Amino acid sequence: MEDSKTAGKSIRCRAAVARKAGEPLSIEELMVAPPESGEVRIRVICSSLCNSDVAFWKMKDPPGYFPRILGHECFGVVESIGENVSEVTVGDAVIPVFMADCGECRDCISSKSNLCSNFPFEVVPWMHRDQKSRFTDLNGETLHHFLHISSFSEYTVVDTVHIVKVDSKIPPDRGCLLSCGATGVGAALKIANVEAGSTVAIFGLGAVGLAVSEGSRLCGAKRIIGVDVNEEKYEIAKKFGVTDFINSRTCGDKSVSQVILEMTDGGADYCFECVGMASLVHEAFACCRKGWGKTVVLGVDRPGSNLTLPSGEVLMSGKTLTGRLFGGLKPKTDVPMLVKRYLDKELELDKFVTHEVKFEDINKAFELLTEGKSLRSIIWMDQNI
Amino acid sequence: MEDSKTAGKSIRCRAAVARKAGEPLSIEELMVAPPESGEVRIRVICSSLCNSDVAFWKMKDPPGYFPRILGHECFGVVESIGENVSEVTVGDAVIPVFMADCGECRDCISSKSNLCSNFPFEVVPWMHRDQKSRFTDLNGETLHHFLHISSFSEYTVVDTVHIVKVDSKIPPDRGCLLSCGATGVGAALKIANVEAGSTVAIFGLGAVGLAVSEGSRLCGAKRIIGVDVNEEKYEIAKKFGVTDFINSRTCGDKSVSQVILEMTDGGADYCFECVGMASLVHEAFACCRKGWGKTVVLGVDRPGSNLTLPSGEVLMSGKTLTGRLFGGLKPKTDVPMLVKRYLDKELELDKFVTHEVKFEDINKAFELLTEGKSLRSIIWMDQNI
Ligand SMILES: [Zn+2]
Ligand SMILES: [Zn+2]
Ligand SMILES: [Zn+2]
Ligand SMILES: [Zn+2]
Repeated sequence: MEDSKTAGKSIRCRAAVARKAGEPLSIEELMVAPPESGEVRIRVICSSLCNSDVAFWKMKDPPGYFPRILGHECFGVVESIGENVSEVTVGDAVIPVFMADCGECRDCISSKSNLCSNFPFEVVPWMHRDQKSRFTDLNGETLHHFLHISSFSEYTVVDTVHIVKVDSKIPPDRGCLLSCGATGVGAALKIANVEAGSTVAIFGLGAVGLAVSEGSRLCGAKRIIGVDVNEEKYEIAKKFGVTDFINSRTCGDKSVSQVILEMTDGGADYCFECVGMASLVHEAFACCRKGWGKTVVLGVDRPGSNLTLPSGEVLMSGKTLTGRLFGGLKPKTDVPMLVKRYLDKELELDKFVTHEVKFEDINKAFELLTEGKSLRSIIWMDQNI
Repeated sequence: MEDSKTAGKSIRCRAAVARKAGEPLSIEELMVAPPESGEVRIRVICSSLCNSDVAFWKMKDPPGYFPRILGHECFGVVESIGENVSEVTVGDAVIPVFMADCGECRDCISSKSNLCSNFPFEVVPWMHRDQKSRFTDLNGETLHHFLHISSFSEYTVVDTVHIVKVDSKIPPDRGCLLSCGATGVGAALKIANVEAGSTVAIFGLGAVGLAVSEGSRLCGAKRIIGVDVNEEKYEIAKKFGVTDFINSRTCGDKSVSQVILEMTDGGADYCFECVGMASLVHEAFACCRKGWGKTVVLGVDRPGSNLTLPSGEVLMSGKTLTGRLFGGLKPKTDVPMLVKRYLDKELELDKFVTHEVKFEDINKAFELLTEGKSLRSIIWMDQNI
């Protein structure tokens, strides 16, 4: 039972603060201001650690900012609400999402877009509406936000455009995975709309690639080909539905696309690039099926990099190239849909969780991920785990 | 009334023979062999002249071949059928199409592809099944075929995979336009699936671009922006539904994509590149609407050219890039559909025809097109026009 004793006041609580690029987070006490108009303050139950947290933690220059509260995959309960908030109320179970869904702009109204125009995706270190922070340390220093969520704090303030109310029956340590980890699942369901019986090729078997596999399995894909440089990934990947593995380092004279074209007798119906290498997009496009093949770009290459595709092939092959943030999921409608599919025992989330750590041990989660030993670690805010 | 007096025998008739690259065609008598198994011989009623006829007529080296019977947009009547032909019979009205539709392969069975696997599109100068010609001149020299149609002959032999039986109510000089001229219409209807009320941008207002506009108009597009270097095209383009014109040479400091982004408040829902310049594909992609914009490549750039797109934009923008031959139309199902839409007075074809010439004056049609004075000239085989 949430109470409103704290409503309207700053809350003093613990957070893991990233003070310097690449250095261990420090558990500190800090003040979390009450939510402004259109915002809610939530009590974080647990977070899961994503590669983007690590990437921004290592980033010395903007969009790396310090000191900062990282964390963008979490499950929480609404502690208090600001003015003009009617969508959720105190005690609601919520999953914050780094992509906004204002429900009012042309994009949010359309079923075809998930790129809110009123609150466009941008990696800024503050709240949307007043471009300020809600976090202050005990010395009065302002701490930066991360992806509008900053869940490595016992309490955090989030704009309602980033809040999804969900069925509280989903366990927090499964729900938190849908904050951002649903990207790959969404890519299969919403961007590619994978058909039952089809063949899928996934370039890169990290968390995103494995989620694509889970999504493809959910859609009834018959064959899921995983491509990675690390042979060990195959064993794990099998749990996510991967049926065939190609080690891209040991294809000999052949390119990966040639190998896939041969083993699929003409190409995969859907190819997903989850690494973030323009050259792999080229390979993926080359081995997706003529006539209807779709290549979906999910990986983030370095800024300024270009994709190159043979001009004639785009015209002659009838293939499609596309990409979308957050797997094309529309937060407020699709996250609850995924929660339902989890509760209906269709979407499998358990296998994404490889480790659990106490909040005090959050740096352990960073180590595990950096060393490639974990897929998702759950970080529990509560002591009782 | 067709008779079968000629069935099984070679027919001596007139054809316009391209003997040398770029030199006037000569009207000659020649022998047209009877159809082999799976083929039909048709009496050509009329052809229309397409830019591809001109392009191959000018081509000195393969896939330019001489002597050759050009022509690939026509309307005809079946004069005789080879063995194993049950789809059409003597006297049927037919429109040949340069893309095959065998009805049996994975692609032809699928509603998603129009790229027949049994008879893949290739610019070869002979019949599919025996890689031979059915044309011989009176000196015994073999004449090459063009795009499996070669309609600049009073009679021609066509494989049934390239034959579409149509409602004979369509006038021949309108039906012939659907042989290949339907590409742009198909691109709007089938590749982009233009939504009513949407905004379309068309790069290049040649025959393909204008057909895209006609297709978009048919789909109920609200705004159709035409881009061309030739200001004069606007007046003609208006007839095809173009509502706004941009002269890409007089955009000043701005790129065409910037101009379109501004005038559409965020981009066109669909962009069509009909020129065949990789750089224009880049522009088209840049100004299609984030979240759902589709860029369709229809123009043929020179072999070996590459499309370059900013890597991040593909992921972040939610846009789609695609292309397809023959506008994604499936010959045997979609050409009859277009015939019906013409007969139902929805699809307007009349405005594509700017000139009519007698067969003897076929070189006049080449001149008109080369000089940019015509859109489509109808070439009537019969004397009585
Ligand atoms: Zn993430
Ligand atoms: Zn919005
Ligand atoms: Zn076929
Ligand atoms: Zn043509």
